Amino acid sequence: MAAYEDLMAFERETQALAQVAGRLGWDQETMMPRDAGPQRGEEMAAMEGVLHARRTDPRVADWLEAAEPVGEVEAAQLHHIKRSYTRASKVPAKLAAQIARVTSEAQGTWAAAREVDDFATFAPVLREVVALKREEGAALSAGGDVYDAMLDDYEPGATAAELAAMFDALRPGLVALRSAVLDAPAPPELQGEFDEGAQMKLSRQIAKVFGYDMAMGRVDKAVHPFSSGSGLDVRITTRTSQSDPFNCIFSTIHEVGHAAYEQGIDRRYLLTPLGGGVSMGVHESQSRIYENQIGRSRAFTGWLYGQMRDAFGDFGIADEDTFYACVNRVQNGYIRTEADEVQYNLHVLLRFDLERALIARDLEVEDLEGAWNERFEADFGVAVDRASNGVLQDVHWSVGLFGYFPTYSLGNVYAGCLNEAMRAAVPDLDSALAEGNTAPATDWLRENVQRHGGLYAPRDLIGQANGATPSEAPLLRYLDKKFRGIYGI
Amino acid sequence: MAAYEDLMAFERETQALAQVAGRLGWDQETMMPRDAGPQRGEEMAAMEGVLHARRTDPRVADWLEAAEPVGEVEAAQLHHIKRSYTRASKVPAKLAAQIARVTSEAQGTWAAAREVDDFATFAPVLREVVALKREEGAALSAGGDVYDAMLDDYEPGATAAELAAMFDALRPGLVALRSAVLDAPAPPELQGEFDEGAQMKLSRQIAKVFGYDMAMGRVDKAVHPFSSGSGLDVRITTRTSQSDPFNCIFSTIHEVGHAAYEQGIDRRYLLTPLGGGVSMGVHESQSRIYENQIGRSRAFTGWLYGQMRDAFGDFGIADEDTFYACVNRVQNGYIRTEADEVQYNLHVLLRFDLERALIARDLEVEDLEGAWNERFEADFGVAVDRASNGVLQDVHWSVGLFGYFPTYSLGNVYAGCLNEAMRAAVPDLDSALAEGNTAPATDWLRENVQRHGGLYAPRDLIGQANGATPSEAPLLRYLDKKFRGIYGI
Repeated sequence: MAAYEDLMAFERETQALAQVAGRLGWDQETMMPRDAGPQRGEEMAAMEGVLHARRTDPRVADWLEAAEPVGEVEAAQLHHIKRSYTRASKVPAKLAAQIARVTSEAQGTWAAAREVDDFATFAPVLREVVALKREEGAALSAGGDVYDAMLDDYEPGATAAELAAMFDALRPGLVALRSAVLDAPAPPELQGEFDEGAQMKLSRQIAKVFGYDMAMGRVDKAVHPFSSGSGLDVRITTRTSQSDPFNCIFSTIHEVGHAAYEQGIDRRYLLTPLGGGVSMGVHESQSRIYENQIGRSRAFTGWLYGQMRDAFGDFGIADEDTFYACVNRVQNGYIRTEADEVQYNLHVLLRFDLERALIARDLEVEDLEGAWNERFEADFGVAVDRASNGVLQDVHWSVGLFGYFPTYSLGNVYAGCLNEAMRAAVPDLDSALAEGNTAPATDWLRENVQRHGGLYAPRDLIGQANGATPSEAPLLRYLDKKFRGIYGI
Repeated sequence: MAAYEDLMAFERETQALAQVAGRLGWDQETMMPRDAGPQRGEEMAAMEGVLHARRTDPRVADWLEAAEPVGEVEAAQLHHIKRSYTRASKVPAKLAAQIARVTSEAQGTWAAAREVDDFATFAPVLREVVALKREEGAALSAGGDVYDAMLDDYEPGATAAELAAMFDALRPGLVALRSAVLDAPAPPELQGEFDEGAQMKLSRQIAKVFGYDMAMGRVDKAVHPFSSGSGLDVRITTRTSQSDPFNCIFSTIHEVGHAAYEQGIDRRYLLTPLGGGVSMGVHESQSRIYENQIGRSRAFTGWLYGQMRDAFGDFGIADEDTFYACVNRVQNGYIRTEADEVQYNLHVLLRFDLERALIARDLEVEDLEGAWNERFEADFGVAVDRASNGVLQDVHWSVGLFGYFPTYSLGNVYAGCLNEAMRAAVPDLDSALAEGNTAPATDWLRENVQRHGGLYAPRDLIGQANGATPSEAPLLRYLDKKFRGIYGI
């Protein structure tokens, strides 16, 4: 046991330091003075250096060799530590530093290129990023599939082939639903101005309604909503726009989903490798089921309608049914982050297919914009009008996040699975949601998903909660029923 | 040069990590969720572990051995690194851990004892703290004076004998002035209620007036005002009380003094050992000269009077002269942190004499309360009514900060020296201050003190700025003139 105990004591400190580094990131987006950036860069780099040294500390290998797991929890802890050690040790320090340098430059180039809608100025540095990430992927895969090795960083155990099969089955249904919905008469759009202070107040109230523990968290404003931290200190951000209170409200609910997952993990796992969300896909399943299957349901929006009228007075929407349709309005758009439930995954699937082709050398960076525009028109029936509405809209590729996009859709697929299982287990859920009581849903998710942290592999975790092998079918059934209902088709 | 360059690169990362640890402290007092404390404790401990390991890294000794300073700056950098390495290496890790554990417990016991005014329940753990700190002091002093070794942590190069000579010369003058002032008719006291939002707004404006760069800092509220951070990210906190806007305003100016010092250090020293304030005494000289010799001057309070009338309307003080007297009102009080300029140092001198006696074993912890009360009555002419107004009022001893108190008064002595030199160098300062322009003062302080960071030893730095050996005489002259003027004695 001594080796295991020593390793866990070391790991606990590493986890604590990782929390510190994460909080620096939170501070940077919320509190940091405007001109502190250059110093902050050095602080972050120093923290990364400390963490990398710990993750590749030779003592970890010795402890892993000597440690004997006595049970399921200990075995899972060792699995995660070994995974992290192996991953960190496989990538040469020089390559990691080069990737850090080039992606930092690429992010600036991307932002400037997006500003002037010029993909050509971004392409050269993107080519460099792709080459370096391929090299890293090759080091990680050790002869296996390079893209799978990248994917594994965000979704342990997932393969591109398995995801592609799932997504290829999802896509035609989404394209057909999108087309049918957009041919039907549209519900009304929200009009008017909504006080931003009142939006934040309402959002904080809704965060509590969803079980977010404010004594171990906080809500601030930031340019991009995010959730950050784990254990006893999980913070979220949201944003406000005077004309669009839904942005604030549903961004908050989405981030609360992420935060509630972290807060819901068994406290025995605090500051251990099991103490965080197990994968990006499972994380996104929680944020999306909070946001959509619960937050945008007919029952919950009925309650929300009353809250909004209390907060903003009469805002021109006549009744709960109209409000429900308004919240779930589907409309043409170029931008992934602004997409509705019907179209969101089509945006992601496009990126997944293109980035796999890039990494596999089936697509050259020169041809990326053309391939994007062609695919977009095929799925969305609309031509991309400019690069900032197309291939330049997301930051991900500039910072080397290949293998990340598919976890968004996998999260939605998982949310679809969990929603069916949850609805079966809690048949009277809607009557609680109609009163603004989310506890029957969030309790079920905490019990079946969140509390386990990193104990089970992502797919096993969802399979156990779901009682069946995860597939895209529940999500499609849910979307079809919901949107054909709203649009009367 | 290679050893020096390697050492400085290593040191730069250490400095960056120390900034991160400091910002965690800021976060804890301003932003941290209520129940995140236990996790934060582990995060702080992990950061301290990282910093301790770096400060005692054997490579530092090798680099120090091999490095050849090429000039004054390089020599000063090496001096600081060697000092830190030697200090960190002298204290056994086991003793350091024990001190951390016992002082953490003692702080809780102190707070509980203060709550019920019972020194006896605090005494046993204070005895432990004193014993451990004596042991640490003995390790640090290596045969020299134990208290001097403690003092050296906060005020490099200072000795208790030198400070005692200074303070013994200061004390009779302060006692006499206090007595004369309190025999004279008192100026009016501020009455009424002052909107706390308006106090914060005015404080931010005043912070800018004093040259605090908000693009590299920020002002938040906290229970205890403090300044935190160095270089490009120096943050301050202040507090508000509806009945006492002076608390908010002068706490802000005080912390701006600390922050301006850090912001004013030559940018070439950023994230190096020279890049922070050189000692607690010099730091306090900047906060106190901003707060008192500038902020509470007749000229500046004339301008402030107008600002307060703009912010709060007529608040019952008839004119600038009355306002000046009101700002500088002297009254009986037990609490150091609430004391006026005349009495503040009497509070500090009492603590200095008692803690020296404790460390020297001339005074036992059992007898501390009695010794406190006796001395207080001698200097202040008033009997202490309860322990929370006496020996239990400050947190310092519970957390082992022996040698810290005298730096407060040394700072005031230094502020007195600097003020005389500054007034001689900037003869028309008052006409600028009367218009709310502090630049002639703050520019002089930046040029003569702040920009040098850790380049010169504290006493040399003040001596150079002052053009004479630092002594208590200028402070006494300043206080005598100011308060005899206000009180017409």
